[in-house]
Amino acid sequence: MQNDKKIGKAVALVSGGLDSCVTAAVAARDHHLALLHVDYGQKTEARERKSFNNIAQFYGAGEKRIVNARFIGDIGGSSLTEPDKNIPALREALKDGKIPSTYVPFRNAVFLSIAVAWAEVLEATSVYIGAVQSDRPGYPDCREEFLAAFNRVVRLGIRPESHIQIVAPLLHSSKKDIVLKGVELGAPLHQTWSCYGEQEIACGCCESCALRRQAFAEAGIQDPVPYADLEAGR
Amino acid sequence: MQNDKKIGKAVALVSGGLDSCVTAAVAARDHHLALLHVDYGQKTEARERKSFNNIAQFYGAGEKRIVNARFIGDIGGSSLTEPDKNIPALREALKDGKIPSTYVPFRNAVFLSIAVAWAEVLEATSVYIGAVQSDRPGYPDCREEFLAAFNRVVRLGIRPESHIQIVAPLLHSSKKDIVLKGVELGAPLHQTWSCYGEQEIACGCCESCALRRQAFAEAGIQDPVPYADLEAGR
Repeated sequence: MQNDKKIGKAVALVSGGLDSCVTAAVAARDHHLALLHVDYGQKTEARERKSFNNIAQFYGAGEKRIVNARFIGDIGGSSLTEPDKNIPALREALKDGKIPSTYVPFRNAVFLSIAVAWAEVLEATSVYIGAVQSDRPGYPDCREEFLAAFNRVVRLGIRPESHIQIVAPLLHSSKKDIVLKGVELGAPLHQTWSCYGEQEIACGCCESCALRRQAFAEAGIQDPVPYADLEAGR
Repeated sequence: MQNDKKIGKAVALVSGGLDSCVTAAVAARDHHLALLHVDYGQKTEARERKSFNNIAQFYGAGEKRIVNARFIGDIGGSSLTEPDKNIPALREALKDGKIPSTYVPFRNAVFLSIAVAWAEVLEATSVYIGAVQSDRPGYPDCREEFLAAFNRVVRLGIRPESHIQIVAPLLHSSKKDIVLKGVELGAPLHQTWSCYGEQEIACGCCESCALRRQAFAEAGIQDPVPYADLEAGR
């Protein structure tokens, strides 16, 4: 998937989910990939890591790094990391206008800081992140203003000879458009993991699975990932 | 050292050196302390950690956290973390106008991101950092513009009901003034560690020791830390 017309390296943050996989696909069009996965103590880390490694293999990424940032889980404050907090249904959580308990305090700032540090050492010119604003109206660190402000921090906080741009190519895309973009770019969607569960096959019925399946349905695309409820029905 | 007139909690980043110790002393005047130390794979971590624990004990800090961020050392790019890179004399490194090899890529952004994440969970109102601009003309992430830009990222990147301010009380202080401020506030300067070496007693002759001793001399204060060269001369 690498060619000679690419302009420099890009670090792409890849959780292993749909959004970050398609983000990596966008980055791969123009850059040599350095793929970064962050283990932040999330409940689904083992399964996410498998997807990350498969996506990295698919792209033959020149550089690959898995970072131990489990202090994020230790700090707590999120149902994605705390064992005694249940992950709520997203739509329900948004009903009262509050930020859902799946929000991880300042997570994208931590992720972007790590990615920029690595990018500076690699002399990469971009950091790609799969932030989606429309999808997550409640998450403050998925908004364009936040990313613009972070870009200013990057310009001011690294060596003057380093030039690194934060890029969020899916920021204003709908989930349906992300599926279509992934198909267009030949992204390995079959390797992605969106489920909030930790089992080998996605449950198909948690909110994250539900949103994903709805997006594939709207796009008219068969989701290549197997689902436990479909398997059971066979 | 805690009293009832304090307004909320502050997270203070404490390496264990002179600047961060005095920064914690400033924070302790107005806030209940939550002290944060980052193990980033620096060569002097074991000795720094000892100083951090002693400073935390001195202040009876209500909260204390040591974070494993050794991925910073793994990423590399600095003589403070890479075993095969020697730490140069600071003044020599600055002679040619370049950023010294002791610069750790985007380190303060990583540190501040971690501190803000913890502050949000603790409902702290401030994050204190011992950045000193005058002391480190070459470090981009010790400048006022960088910290101002980071404050904007904080305002935009956390829950709207959270209010956290980055504070760098020594940003424009000289090393001499930092010593005087520390004495004025009764900071435990005898517990601090500034040496680039890892041995039990500070060498007294590396650039960091030299700058510190010069500052104490200018302030007319006896440095309470023992030095190996003085001990040898006794």
